[in-house]
Amino acid sequence: MPEPRPRPVVVDTTASPHASLRPLPLDAVTIADSFWAPRRRVNREVSLPTQFRLLKETGRLANFRRAAGRDDSPFQGRYFNDSDVYKWVEAAAWALAEEPDPALAAQVVAVVAEIATAQRADGYLNSYFAGERADLRWTDLDLHELYCAGHLFQAAVALHRATGATDLLEIATRFADHIVETFGPDRQAERPWADGHPEVEMALVELFRETGERRYLDQASLFLDARGHGKLGRPYDRHSPEYHQDHRPFRAAEALVGHAVRALYLAGGAADLAAETDDAPLRAALDRLWEHTVAKKTYISGGLGARYEGEAFGDDYELPNERAYTETCAAIASVMWNWRLLQLDGDARYADALETVLYNGVLPGVSLEGDTYFYQNPLADQGGHRRQPWFGTACCPPNIARLLASLPGYVASHDEDGAWLHLFAQGSVRFPHASGTVRLGLRTDYPWDGEVAIVVEEGDGDFAVRLRIPGWCREGATLAVNDESAANVQPGAYAELRRRWRPGDRVHLSLPMPVRRLVAHPHVAENVGRVALLRGPLLFCVEAADNPGLDFRDLVLPDAAELRPEVRPDLLGGVVVLLGEGRMTPPVAGWAGAAYLPAEVAEPDPVGTTPTPITAIPYAVWANREAGPMAVWLRRA
Amino acid sequence: MPEPRPRPVVVDTTASPHASLRPLPLDAVTIADSFWAPRRRVNREVSLPTQFRLLKETGRLANFRRAAGRDDSPFQGRYFNDSDVYKWVEAAAWALAEEPDPALAAQVVAVVAEIATAQRADGYLNSYFAGERADLRWTDLDLHELYCAGHLFQAAVALHRATGATDLLEIATRFADHIVETFGPDRQAERPWADGHPEVEMALVELFRETGERRYLDQASLFLDARGHGKLGRPYDRHSPEYHQDHRPFRAAEALVGHAVRALYLAGGAADLAAETDDAPLRAALDRLWEHTVAKKTYISGGLGARYEGEAFGDDYELPNERAYTETCAAIASVMWNWRLLQLDGDARYADALETVLYNGVLPGVSLEGDTYFYQNPLADQGGHRRQPWFGTACCPPNIARLLASLPGYVASHDEDGAWLHLFAQGSVRFPHASGTVRLGLRTDYPWDGEVAIVVEEGDGDFAVRLRIPGWCREGATLAVNDESAANVQPGAYAELRRRWRPGDRVHLSLPMPVRRLVAHPHVAENVGRVALLRGPLLFCVEAADNPGLDFRDLVLPDAAELRPEVRPDLLGGVVVLLGEGRMTPPVAGWAGAAYLPAEVAEPDPVGTTPTPITAIPYAVWANREAGPMAVWLRRA
Repeated sequence: MPEPRPRPVVVDTTASPHASLRPLPLDAVTIADSFWAPRRRVNREVSLPTQFRLLKETGRLANFRRAAGRDDSPFQGRYFNDSDVYKWVEAAAWALAEEPDPALAAQVVAVVAEIATAQRADGYLNSYFAGERADLRWTDLDLHELYCAGHLFQAAVALHRATGATDLLEIATRFADHIVETFGPDRQAERPWADGHPEVEMALVELFRETGERRYLDQASLFLDARGHGKLGRPYDRHSPEYHQDHRPFRAAEALVGHAVRALYLAGGAADLAAETDDAPLRAALDRLWEHTVAKKTYISGGLGARYEGEAFGDDYELPNERAYTETCAAIASVMWNWRLLQLDGDARYADALETVLYNGVLPGVSLEGDTYFYQNPLADQGGHRRQPWFGTACCPPNIARLLASLPGYVASHDEDGAWLHLFAQGSVRFPHASGTVRLGLRTDYPWDGEVAIVVEEGDGDFAVRLRIPGWCREGATLAVNDESAANVQPGAYAELRRRWRPGDRVHLSLPMPVRRLVAHPHVAENVGRVALLRGPLLFCVEAADNPGLDFRDLVLPDAAELRPEVRPDLLGGVVVLLGEGRMTPPVAGWAGAAYLPAEVAEPDPVGTTPTPITAIPYAVWANREAGPMAVWLRRA
Repeated sequence: MPEPRPRPVVVDTTASPHASLRPLPLDAVTIADSFWAPRRRVNREVSLPTQFRLLKETGRLANFRRAAGRDDSPFQGRYFNDSDVYKWVEAAAWALAEEPDPALAAQVVAVVAEIATAQRADGYLNSYFAGERADLRWTDLDLHELYCAGHLFQAAVALHRATGATDLLEIATRFADHIVETFGPDRQAERPWADGHPEVEMALVELFRETGERRYLDQASLFLDARGHGKLGRPYDRHSPEYHQDHRPFRAAEALVGHAVRALYLAGGAADLAAETDDAPLRAALDRLWEHTVAKKTYISGGLGARYEGEAFGDDYELPNERAYTETCAAIASVMWNWRLLQLDGDARYADALETVLYNGVLPGVSLEGDTYFYQNPLADQGGHRRQPWFGTACCPPNIARLLASLPGYVASHDEDGAWLHLFAQGSVRFPHASGTVRLGLRTDYPWDGEVAIVVEEGDGDFAVRLRIPGWCREGATLAVNDESAANVQPGAYAELRRRWRPGDRVHLSLPMPVRRLVAHPHVAENVGRVALLRGPLLFCVEAADNPGLDFRDLVLPDAAELRPEVRPDLLGGVVVLLGEGRMTPPVAGWAGAAYLPAEVAEPDPVGTTPTPITAIPYAVWANREAGPMAVWLRRA
């Protein structure tokens, strides 16, 4: 066990031989803006405390006491409930990394103590497989023992990086050693099984990074390689091999299939392995899967996983709007996957995807008040889909909490040449360089405005600053250093500024944010003839609260209709809305009682099309007011 | 027990006080046409024998032996597998009603003998709840004990009507008596439960009709009334109350919800009860549910149940094409429901719906060869959805078999005034009348041609003949008696011809069959801007076999494009196809790798739109050739 060395790095590719970019610790980045800072404060002040209360009230902590023999109440909830506790600990750890909080720290200490008592002498730790179910350990790899282990490992690594605390890390390594003993190279003949819910792969690589113990990395490789040989260790009676990503070896996969969160966590683990090992087929598979996913499986929100049935990816271009499943956890998994890919070689396409899914796929998952959550994130709704305080399967709430708590870690990376700026938020970024520590100050009202001013606040030397020019900024992006225009500004790439920097040097990045109209690939059946509105990185939608009484299914937006952004500091925590005029074309009278009509009698009465002002809001903040219809995709005319 | 009196009536409303129409026995109707007759011959010669073999091979018969203690192999398959055996017996019974078949009769005798041995002394009969599970009887009403009982009763009634055999009917009544003892009026305090899978309601009413035992009717009422009080008898952990139609009392329901087959079987049972009891709220509920279902929940094929998740009805207008679930059994249940409603007062709208779902919702469920089946019936496909010889849950195959075997029973009804002709097929209809037996001969090539000639072959007296003028025939239908034009021909209504008839009198009904273009209600998201093609009662589709290499998602059919019917006796058992010219508009190059593009760069290149001849075939016969894409809904231009 290395000495505790607080270094709160979300994913530590610092020494990964095949990753070009290096992470920055959370405390090297400050976010002091009007967009993320309030959300992160709510995460700390509302989400974490209410989630802690719910972990207690729903028996998730009592389950550990029960497993320790200190509570004789029955096991409460579902077999994977331990993972919610671990994810909350991880979220709390990242929060503590940034700012001391004695009350939160005391809660963490108490939870870790509960966890510790439930660990068995052989290192095994799972509160469901205790007592009367102790003999059922490792008999059914769809019962999430390795999934829960993975979240324990990630929590332990986070707590160690954040606070230096070693107790949870020791628990984690004892359990990891038990797993290696149970599933390691010596046990492959006996247990060559693929796990039912991937997650442990990312966690084992991180545990390797934190401890230097190579056996954890090797175990992650073994788990990845176990897939595609039909060896789940149990019959495929509940689900298909595709559901579990066990239909073919990962390196041979052509598409992400099955349960979306599982598929994306597995892909994240594969990306972690690609950072550590020289594995060209794995890199090729990751590229192939990413490109296929982006081109044919991804919602315009960045959301993933179209089907309710099996919480799964649909077929190519199967992207229904009202029935979009798009689990919040899948969006978070996409952030994690894209982050890992981005670190490999700094390809801006991953950062673009990360930004899209962060603003539009993850954020709708939590209310502005921070106390209710979406599990599914539809792109249209008739008013019935509302956030809930908690779920029987409560994976999403603590997952959002850990992402928001660790957000500074996703803003920038560095390498020996200098810095990489991926996301834009007012605040600062500090990074080490051969010439000494560098600190850049960022001033921007992003995502509402595309002007980004960067000042060298500290640092003097030859280094490079790479600024992402978002792919969404197709035209007009400009970059200047000390008022001198810089060349080579390509959308969807990093612009590199390499020079002798001195304190006070100023960079100005200008990203014009006209309203953009996007259309979906014509094979997306529900979106033929429809258009979506975006501005900057944000996807927009129309919602009943701003457009009372309108049935958006009857709304037509002419291509020629002007859409005007308007700053609304009073609305939804301060947003930019889009104002324009559409036309309402309600169904003709003949439709009463009929689902199908002859084409000639079904046409809307042109006289009945009424010009109607419409207001669109960022999709990220929908469903924060009274319930009512919402739509992202609007009919064009 | 009344004396056996073979009278093979599919649903016996003969003495039902609140049904205006009376059924005709199967042997009163002959079907000797080129459409149904070959399908019914395949049903008898291929489907019934192969299904019998599969019942044996999959252990469904052995399960009865096991329950009788004569076979110590484990229970095979799923807990509702008995019902497949019962449905096969019912199908065989209807087949025997029409035509003797010693081999089939011997199989039925053997199966009934197996069933008989499995019945317990107290009348209980279910091969799953035997042996080690005998104590679990009636502890979980989602485990289909009453569902299986219902299919047993229907099989017993059919066999009795078809052959006069009383042995299965005695088994059925003993079990029904046990059910009344267990769930009857005296046991409501103890077991006020709603059954998990409705079906027994229709069966109990029919058992009442066959035996005259009022307690069976009363029990059906009790089961209907049990719904909507949250008393499933088990926790709602697997499914919601809506899934089981237990969310509200049936008479208060506003829409069919949840599992589609369950909802439709329940509605069928309610219609049976409405025929027997003076129950205005029940009639009102049936009207309301039917109108809502037709207006907002029904595919253009007549198929029902949009969602894979829960095999359930979706929200209003939630009718995806490729992901349509539209279980074959739901289409069959719709035939059953509409038939029962039609008998109540002869409203042609039910006959129209029955015809639509029969030709377009049920028929695609079985191959022309009669040995493979669809469980789901999508309205678009990329080539992957193919019929299977059997399923683990094999409800659909024997359900189709019993419907096709009983088809003559759906052609016509009568009342004291005369006959009602609902469906058109070459053959004859015999019905009793005060003036003596009447026999009408029908000559027609329906559904390929709309000319129907009817001759009075036997009969002399004052009676009425009511001919359905299909709702699809919006213009130009004419009717003549002995070459004299008859008035009052309204689409979607019965035309009544009342006169003094003599042998040789001739009726000629002419139903023009132009190609019709229908559009879906604009709230059906996938079908905005799309059109479907129909001719007569048949829905059409385009399929790869006739249109090789075309991606139908890129096909646009101009409204002005002429569509020409062509008789193709060589094709698919003899069909009419539609020929026309569409335009192929493949996505522009910019789409490579992208799911979303700016509206201005995504437009198809007009130069790239290629005129392309297309051939459409009846949807009823799709997927009978090589695999490939299929589409019902085409983009308009």
